[in-house]
Amino acid sequence: MAEAIRRLAIRGAPLIGVAAAYGLALELAGDVASLDRACALLRSARPTAVNLAWAVDRVRARVLAGTPADAASTALAEARAIEQEEEAASEAIAARGADLLAGTRTILTHCNTGALAAPGRGTALAVVAELARRGGLERVLATESRPLLQGARLTAYELAHLGIPYDLIVDAAGPALIACGDVEAAIVGCDRVAANGDVANKIGTYALALAAQAAGIPFVVAGPTSSIDANCPSGAAIVVEQRDPDEVRAALGRPLTLPEAHVLNPAFDVTPAELVTALVTERGVISPPTAASLRPLSA
Amino acid sequence: MAEAIRRLAIRGAPLIGVAAAYGLALELAGDVASLDRACALLRSARPTAVNLAWAVDRVRARVLAGTPADAASTALAEARAIEQEEEAASEAIAARGADLLAGTRTILTHCNTGALAAPGRGTALAVVAELARRGGLERVLATESRPLLQGARLTAYELAHLGIPYDLIVDAAGPALIACGDVEAAIVGCDRVAANGDVANKIGTYALALAAQAAGIPFVVAGPTSSIDANCPSGAAIVVEQRDPDEVRAALGRPLTLPEAHVLNPAFDVTPAELVTALVTERGVISPPTAASLRPLSA
Repeated sequence: MAEAIRRLAIRGAPLIGVAAAYGLALELAGDVASLDRACALLRSARPTAVNLAWAVDRVRARVLAGTPADAASTALAEARAIEQEEEAASEAIAARGADLLAGTRTILTHCNTGALAAPGRGTALAVVAELARRGGLERVLATESRPLLQGARLTAYELAHLGIPYDLIVDAAGPALIACGDVEAAIVGCDRVAANGDVANKIGTYALALAAQAAGIPFVVAGPTSSIDANCPSGAAIVVEQRDPDEVRAALGRPLTLPEAHVLNPAFDVTPAELVTALVTERGVISPPTAASLRPLSA
Repeated sequence: MAEAIRRLAIRGAPLIGVAAAYGLALELAGDVASLDRACALLRSARPTAVNLAWAVDRVRARVLAGTPADAASTALAEARAIEQEEEAASEAIAARGADLLAGTRTILTHCNTGALAAPGRGTALAVVAELARRGGLERVLATESRPLLQGARLTAYELAHLGIPYDLIVDAAGPALIACGDVEAAIVGCDRVAANGDVANKIGTYALALAAQAAGIPFVVAGPTSSIDANCPSGAAIVVEQRDPDEVRAALGRPLTLPEAHVLNPAFDVTPAELVTALVTERGVISPPTAASLRPLSA
């Protein structure tokens, strides 16, 4: 399971938390004594999304509170509880976000945050889907999300599947199309929200937030409260995962540059809280996100 | 020649002007009567870069001022003159830009603006190369420049060839790495500069300019005065070329999304003059570019 999370066979902040919880249950069914080793392995699979550590710690605490003989069944029950809670959170996020953005006709989203990234309908893309279901949404701009192209591979697929009109764009076109006045709002997911409201999310999020601010349109972040890290004071404390240079050197295996090209491949960036109009969680819409407004949610 | 320019076998604003001039000379060697048709065909090959129309108009005016019998030789001589002038402009831009950015250790550049994009050493990348030649430049961040990957395919190659340390990054990482404080300046080329200083350049330029402003680092545009369009009052009047959706649906022929995915593929964006710290031309550094400061250069 850790390997599946590491290579992104399972990805999306809420989903890797749920998957890690099930992974831990699976491991304990085989060997109860492996709890600490399994927790460490799963937690280390990806460093930026906090849901992973949160879910692992939650299952671990529940297991340690019980007896060794019940460890596997306790872990499985807790994994199921987390999945159900995240699914309910997704529905609540979709409804609250669609309320917040009622009347939006064109919206831009980044990366993939739908049913392929989370239990239930997802986070940001669940809001988009709910806006479309309620009527009035005319078009979605979806970024391709290099290097791993989650937007091109997953979001375009989800939007087509949902019957929502969309245009796929290269990442660099997002800020420019926002500046053109072609977009009324931008919405993204989050891999971690610091206690002060700074948001770590897929690389490219920061540029979209800057452009939204310049254009005077809402920049909305959607995610479950499990993505809020009360122990992380600000974005400066978030470890940004640096991934394999080969992801940039190629696209789906097709080489794009010199085989030995030097590469920097940060998977995430940090958007300062000041650029975030609202954080949509299952427990409420925080607008604007600040240390004070977030504290009740992460408690 | 028009077809080669259209499909980007020849690209880079200064280079397509020179190539069009030679194309016209070639056509007139075969059929003097084709002047107007050839001019229209070449001018229409790409709509955004102004060097194309500028070079074609310049050769055409020279041909019309002479006799039909001399048309081909006149055109060839003018094409050679344009090439030599652009080559000299490239040297002057390199020197003036390196003077402006003296002491810069880390610089970010976008797309390809080197010897593969212009006569001589290029524009923005010529400045980078000159900074490296003078010593002190430690590292270049080069964006891959989706969808056609001129950064990954050409700039990484040029930098490796020049022996300049670099890191290739996805386009979305540029603004984020600027925000991290990892970059001291950003420099790009230009496809057209409007009379008020607004800059049309490769899609993604605008986001880099926003990030540079937010980080308080210089955002420098480099290009020959042939890229300044005195007849274009502002960026709002610049026609942005919309290219084939298949460019976004694939990377070097490798499909990345649904074959029928809906796509928007603007090749350029417009950066407002207010975000441009300086425009480096062969005739001087304009800082900041405004209608008043640009007027003497485009005269």
